Amino acid sequence: MIIQLKRKATQEDIQKAIDRLNQLANEAGTTLQYHIVQGEELPVIAVKAPGTDIAKIHEERLRQLDCVEDIKRIADPFKLASRSYLDRRIVNVGEIEIGADRLCIIAGPCAVEDEDQIMRAAKEVKEAGADMLRAGAYKPRTSPYSFQGLKEEGLKLLKLAKEETGLPIVTEITDPRNIEIYQRYGVDVYQVGARNCQNYDLLKALTELSQTKAGVLLKRGMATTLDELMNAAEYLLAGNVQNVMLCLRGIKGVDLKYTRNSIDTGDISVLTQNCNIPIIYDPSHACGKRSFVNDTALGAVGHGAHGLMIEAHPNPENALSDGPQSLYTNGDPKSTTTLSRVIKNAREYYDFRKGLKVFK
Amino acid sequence: MIIQLKRKATQEDIQKAIDRLNQLANEAGTTLQYHIVQGEELPVIAVKAPGTDIAKIHEERLRQLDCVEDIKRIADPFKLASRSYLDRRIVNVGEIEIGADRLCIIAGPCAVEDEDQIMRAAKEVKEAGADMLRAGAYKPRTSPYSFQGLKEEGLKLLKLAKEETGLPIVTEITDPRNIEIYQRYGVDVYQVGARNCQNYDLLKALTELSQTKAGVLLKRGMATTLDELMNAAEYLLAGNVQNVMLCLRGIKGVDLKYTRNSIDTGDISVLTQNCNIPIIYDPSHACGKRSFVNDTALGAVGHGAHGLMIEAHPNPENALSDGPQSLYTNGDPKSTTTLSRVIKNAREYYDFRKGLKVFK
Amino acid sequence: MIIQLKRKATQEDIQKAIDRLNQLANEAGTTLQYHIVQGEELPVIAVKAPGTDIAKIHEERLRQLDCVEDIKRIADPFKLASRSYLDRRIVNVGEIEIGADRLCIIAGPCAVEDEDQIMRAAKEVKEAGADMLRAGAYKPRTSPYSFQGLKEEGLKLLKLAKEETGLPIVTEITDPRNIEIYQRYGVDVYQVGARNCQNYDLLKALTELSQTKAGVLLKRGMATTLDELMNAAEYLLAGNVQNVMLCLRGIKGVDLKYTRNSIDTGDISVLTQNCNIPIIYDPSHACGKRSFVNDTALGAVGHGAHGLMIEAHPNPENALSDGPQSLYTNGDPKSTTTLSRVIKNAREYYDFRKGLKVFK
Amino acid sequence: MIIQLKRKATQEDIQKAIDRLNQLANEAGTTLQYHIVQGEELPVIAVKAPGTDIAKIHEERLRQLDCVEDIKRIADPFKLASRSYLDRRIVNVGEIEIGADRLCIIAGPCAVEDEDQIMRAAKEVKEAGADMLRAGAYKPRTSPYSFQGLKEEGLKLLKLAKEETGLPIVTEITDPRNIEIYQRYGVDVYQVGARNCQNYDLLKALTELSQTKAGVLLKRGMATTLDELMNAAEYLLAGNVQNVMLCLRGIKGVDLKYTRNSIDTGDISVLTQNCNIPIIYDPSHACGKRSFVNDTALGAVGHGAHGLMIEAHPNPENALSDGPQSLYTNGDPKSTTTLSRVIKNAREYYDFRKGLKVFK
Repeated sequence: MIIQLKRKATQEDIQKAIDRLNQLANEAGTTLQYHIVQGEELPVIAVKAPGTDIAKIHEERLRQLDCVEDIKRIADPFKLASRSYLDRRIVNVGEIEIGADRLCIIAGPCAVEDEDQIMRAAKEVKEAGADMLRAGAYKPRTSPYSFQGLKEEGLKLLKLAKEETGLPIVTEITDPRNIEIYQRYGVDVYQVGARNCQNYDLLKALTELSQTKAGVLLKRGMATTLDELMNAAEYLLAGNVQNVMLCLRGIKGVDLKYTRNSIDTGDISVLTQNCNIPIIYDPSHACGKRSFVNDTALGAVGHGAHGLMIEAHPNPENALSDGPQSLYTNGDPKSTTTLSRVIKNAREYYDFRKGLKVFK
Repeated sequence: MIIQLKRKATQEDIQKAIDRLNQLANEAGTTLQYHIVQGEELPVIAVKAPGTDIAKIHEERLRQLDCVEDIKRIADPFKLASRSYLDRRIVNVGEIEIGADRLCIIAGPCAVEDEDQIMRAAKEVKEAGADMLRAGAYKPRTSPYSFQGLKEEGLKLLKLAKEETGLPIVTEITDPRNIEIYQRYGVDVYQVGARNCQNYDLLKALTELSQTKAGVLLKRGMATTLDELMNAAEYLLAGNVQNVMLCLRGIKGVDLKYTRNSIDTGDISVLTQNCNIPIIYDPSHACGKRSFVNDTALGAVGHGAHGLMIEAHPNPENALSDGPQSLYTNGDPKSTTTLSRVIKNAREYYDFRKGLKVFK
Repeated sequence: MIIQLKRKATQEDIQKAIDRLNQLANEAGTTLQYHIVQGEELPVIAVKAPGTDIAKIHEERLRQLDCVEDIKRIADPFKLASRSYLDRRIVNVGEIEIGADRLCIIAGPCAVEDEDQIMRAAKEVKEAGADMLRAGAYKPRTSPYSFQGLKEEGLKLLKLAKEETGLPIVTEITDPRNIEIYQRYGVDVYQVGARNCQNYDLLKALTELSQTKAGVLLKRGMATTLDELMNAAEYLLAGNVQNVMLCLRGIKGVDLKYTRNSIDTGDISVLTQNCNIPIIYDPSHACGKRSFVNDTALGAVGHGAHGLMIEAHPNPENALSDGPQSLYTNGDPKSTTTLSRVIKNAREYYDFRKGLKVFK
Repeated sequence: MIIQLKRKATQEDIQKAIDRLNQLANEAGTTLQYHIVQGEELPVIAVKAPGTDIAKIHEERLRQLDCVEDIKRIADPFKLASRSYLDRRIVNVGEIEIGADRLCIIAGPCAVEDEDQIMRAAKEVKEAGADMLRAGAYKPRTSPYSFQGLKEEGLKLLKLAKEETGLPIVTEITDPRNIEIYQRYGVDVYQVGARNCQNYDLLKALTELSQTKAGVLLKRGMATTLDELMNAAEYLLAGNVQNVMLCLRGIKGVDLKYTRNSIDTGDISVLTQNCNIPIIYDPSHACGKRSFVNDTALGAVGHGAHGLMIEAHPNPENALSDGPQSLYTNGDPKSTTTLSRVIKNAREYYDFRKGLKVFK
């Protein structure tokens, strides 16, 4: 951590900064070393701490000293998610490993609509080669007048689908008060949606899951920076949730004529170099149109994704939500808008990329 | 609503779209009129509904028909927040009117830190001319290692400050499970923070307040569009919360070297022309530096804001959070980093602007 | 300038960095002082130079040393545009002073269309209270199929309008090969448009004007950062162009449903605190709709703008370009879509703001 | 084209719109067909023209009619660049085909620095497997105090490098006045840089090249939308330049902590579905750090790029510009920061992707 003081900082100002640092070190239960540069117009204090303790120093309380001009962190502001803490985490959901040798595929409709739909979806998704089933029971919607999901009834149907197909269930949780119900229906992976990415009370509530094998799939918010995302994951890791996955799904951008969101596959490469958590990419929400899904899936694999989450529906034209971006679970196996074809392409591509030995 | 069909749409496709429309009208409890243009390459269906009913038509379920290329809404996607529904809402918090003749000022520190700090802040903020006191008890923080607020103890101290000064209390709520505690301590205005702007479960839970006189101050998310913001407010209005205010506080942007956020005062002008809810501007979070607060406050008033929310602290250098952007509650009355000076400037400017008769 | 070396930098690496610094100082004709911090994991070199010479050090050539992790500039990367070099520049165009006591108003149609139109526009714009006439002769257009301006004929007509009304002429230049023609027709202010903000060959060519009294109005690019903008101005100042003005006109953004661009009035406050050049705001291009122009003009004045550039046309419905955002030059004097009304409001507001003594 | 009129549009308004349409059709030398929907509150005019003529209709002059609320284009606003005009263009530079069976690689240093450097770079780049050599002679720089290139001397050295290696030369042109010099030195591909993407005078000047076999590589601007980019290319195509390539190179974004630009590889997929011009990706400028180049190159290939432009230097630590993002032309062949390794990976990946038969 490098603290740059104001140009005219006095000896007294420097002492003030050092006192504050000692106080913060004390609060964080660590010790710090300082190097002070007293150049006439350029006073700088360089600070270091043992191990990754510097992440615990409360930067903001330094910043508010009038004599402090700016602070530059050298170490990551997060700790447990960092590759300097641990090289790589592998997540286990049932017998599926994510972040390892095989490209993980999560697929299914946006929402559970009724028993027929979800049972058919589950079977067809499994046949197409997916590892897990996704579908929403509690749906957060932009407008209060839109379909809000089947709620508990939806969880019940997902349990049924799992019993029938053996596929682990991924479904979104939006309210800390619902964790108990989700546990009752044996949800395998709790998805935290983009709008709740920085809903810290929800994240803290989910640390209850640390006693279980349940996974958490944390989606990037609409304009969340990568540091904010890794810090949000840090809430889960600091609470001992073991099976954490990150999911990118497109972000807001200046040019949304052709796609629903700005496609952020490039950030996969950045995350895999800085963060030890497996990265899933969701091409369906990123693009918003099924004709772009296959190309975007291959791009995500090219950038180094460990898994894909893909929307697919037996009958997209009658889907209650997200129809235009859903692949066909049972379409022409040669078409790139059919789930099985996209999964096959993406898995082959992933395996070929592994052969290039560029995975980190 | 204008529905553009795919170029090669057949007669059958058009019928399919009409059937879907009838089904959706039925679900929404309204009736629709259609006009069909069957140009060879340009089939278009124009649709209207009585009053503002078109807002209830579930656009997405039309969009997923394969024959639909695009849909263009003419009416607002929200209803109760719209100026075509009601020209202007005036909010009442105790005896204070927001959205009317007087510029409303909410001021106070980022967080309640201890009894001395909040009591002193409350008194000085009142002397400086503020109408309400703001301070956080439950703090959502980017990093799990940062100060998270005094929680219930903070609410207790806010109650004390209110008893002492008579200032209504504005404080952030982050978890639906806490509403009861907030009610117990008589919170006047429930602030929904930027990160929870689209936390719909929290918004729905807050509709409990419809039985009370409590207000809700809804802050714009980091990259929330104006439509998303007005739709989030619609959740509250549809749940009969009467005293809703919107608060802009800067958004993410491409050039954040000089300010914490991209300053969005310009959006005040857009909102006041489209939305009937009073608009508060928060220059402190927008800028992140106290030296910009006065100019930004005047800019916000120039754009038509009905109120300002300003961070101020008796001793910003020792604030536990947001010190660099806090004004001095007790500084030199001539300095533009002193709260009383900024309030005085902004109120005079507001009154002068009213004289220009450009308020709508 | 603070140079942070890689964690494992050796003594040799530090020497390499010092050697490079000496070489760069030599090339820049200055001398540098160093302070080295050799903390075990945190080697830092702090560098300073006399006066504002540090701006001439070629940062990038330091950055490419493998041992350099990052560089942090403390001084501005520009020099002549900075308020630490000169507190404030006042620009003179004929007898008009910009950046001083009076709000400067530049108004007129997007393009010169024909003699009748421009002569009528010029007269009406003058009557409405404007200080200068703007209109384009050479028009850069997004599509090759759009109206590209009257070119030299347009300049001829602008000269005529100036002779008739006495208003100085502001018109856009897009090609360095045209400077001579512009000079022939006595153009007073050369506007560099948003798309050419970083067209450095054009900027360098315009330094020819240093021998004349002509002004340059440099518009911010669609996504140009404030530093890039001030650096672009630095090209003009370094070439001795004396009468430089900056013009903000909205930028790209994530929410352009209601306005043509994201309104960047807030950046006026930032620029006036960091840059000595007068700031003009163009509410017409920022908003794209005439109904927003008056409010946005007041917002800009609230933020501290020294002038406004406003599109206005005698007959916007027949304008060849930018009609929807043009005010009426001859509308109802009470309407806020009439030029004279907006000018009157903005000037009164500017004068009132001066009384608040917050202008810097 | 769908024209939505204001809610209260009268019969007279509709006639006014039709008259304007006829006038514009006349000016564009085409004829139009109309379908009018006179719904009480929803008057709409649907318009079509033969072939792709609708692109020539001057939308803005319709928009400025007071009775027009909005206009929605159905056809692309560009014509010759569109896949509905021509399925795919293959570009020929010497014997190299771009947009066909083989991944095209353009590589070389940011700038020509001296004879030794460029000759060595050219040879090593060729050995590494590149198809063309890139290097700048005229450099546009953000600051007037930075290295501005060797200018004509640089072109001379590039000619020498071409004679020695046979590699065609790609180099940036920034000023229309220089085309003649570039032709004198036999430049093969004229690169239009990001800052000049919408410098229409430069684009128009480059149509002189239509008489030659020279190519133009048009880079996307920092925040240029895809439509603006395709329209800029349309200037070249409309001027009969045959060998046009587009190059994406990262755009501005809200999160630039880890990379120089926001990585826009996802837009490759969008462009290849809408535009017939070959797409090159530049991972070096997108990322700004050599450690990300290999992963980003694979991502770009995954998304469907037809070529890559990669910065590489014999000695990046001594490069005069862009050192940190340059690969080593002569590094360890196993390292992913060595040019030959990245080219090999990318070509193998491209060939494997072709086997998946998803190229369009």
